[in-house]
Amino acid sequence: MIYQYTGKTMKYCSICGNPVEQRIPEGDNRHRYVCVSCETIHYQNPNIVAGTVTVWEGQILLCRRAIEPRYGYWTLPAGFMENEETTMEAAARETREEALAEVDIQGLYSMIDVPHINQVHLFYRAQLLDGRFGAGEESLETQLFHPSRIPWSEISFPTVRKTLELFLSDMKTQQFGVHVTDIRHPMAKNN
Amino acid sequence: MIYQYTGKTMKYCSICGNPVEQRIPEGDNRHRYVCVSCETIHYQNPNIVAGTVTVWEGQILLCRRAIEPRYGYWTLPAGFMENEETTMEAAARETREEALAEVDIQGLYSMIDVPHINQVHLFYRAQLLDGRFGAGEESLETQLFHPSRIPWSEISFPTVRKTLELFLSDMKTQQFGVHVTDIRHPMAKNN
Repeated sequence: MIYQYTGKTMKYCSICGNPVEQRIPEGDNRHRYVCVSCETIHYQNPNIVAGTVTVWEGQILLCRRAIEPRYGYWTLPAGFMENEETTMEAAARETREEALAEVDIQGLYSMIDVPHINQVHLFYRAQLLDGRFGAGEESLETQLFHPSRIPWSEISFPTVRKTLELFLSDMKTQQFGVHVTDIRHPMAKNN
Repeated sequence: MIYQYTGKTMKYCSICGNPVEQRIPEGDNRHRYVCVSCETIHYQNPNIVAGTVTVWEGQILLCRRAIEPRYGYWTLPAGFMENEETTMEAAARETREEALAEVDIQGLYSMIDVPHINQVHLFYRAQLLDGRFGAGEESLETQLFHPSRIPWSEISFPTVRKTLELFLSDMKTQQFGVHVTDIRHPMAKNN
């Protein structure tokens, strides 16, 4: 799944339960949540979303989302990387969970920074192992799409759209490099 | 900086201050810390460390660490990616902070998963803009090293060593691809 955190503000120390305050710790240059009692510094850092561009007989595997946000829209199988796994394992796991598909991962394909939501999206190229797939709990349906039939008007997220655009272009030459780019908030001043 | 989190156990909800319990939320398949009062799910996810392999006139920029862990050992400039920045911005910022160097980033070089500490390390290839560098607050000294003089016995972290090994090999042909690999805990059963 790709979802967004609630963005609730930290008020209490998760270690000792006392209030936190925002201040710049010694030797640091940024405001952090710091416990007024046990002095634990609670860092907040970006999250990784990992997924696959999975191909079978020249067609691309997409899932139609059964959850918000973007219920009913099509996505590449992808979701938050978990602790104790690699990015590649995360990408394969998400493909298994959302598309009920076992894949052979072939290489990193895209890394897209999305700084306004504190995420980095990674997509690996993959092939279905045996052609089998289905709809996982978070998918209404899963389908293979010929490049000329991608449902562009119903794509869930900008990073999925960007990765599909790059991939379709590379399919013509069968030269798949690693694409590193970013997607900024449409209202960001520097874009 | 590259450091490790304390690994303290979450006991209280950072939103409302009430106790958390470990359970599998509805629709999930993993144990999470969930607040017994406000029901907030506190996800824990891997962190990104970003840095550079910075070159100037065929030599590589290394910093000698002025902080624990690995005080006194040599590292590539790198540290935890912050919210609201891209991986590339993080890599350039860490190089500025630790090596007082402005760099021109040339491309992603290595992505190394380190699942036993829940980190993903990213190194970008870079060049010094004007040859200037120095020792930032977290560095005892910063130095350019000829490939034949890398202080191999005093390298700080496995991902730094691996990235340097790959880079020195690629320098011979001047063909720099993107290297994706992982480093597992030496005691891990599957390695």
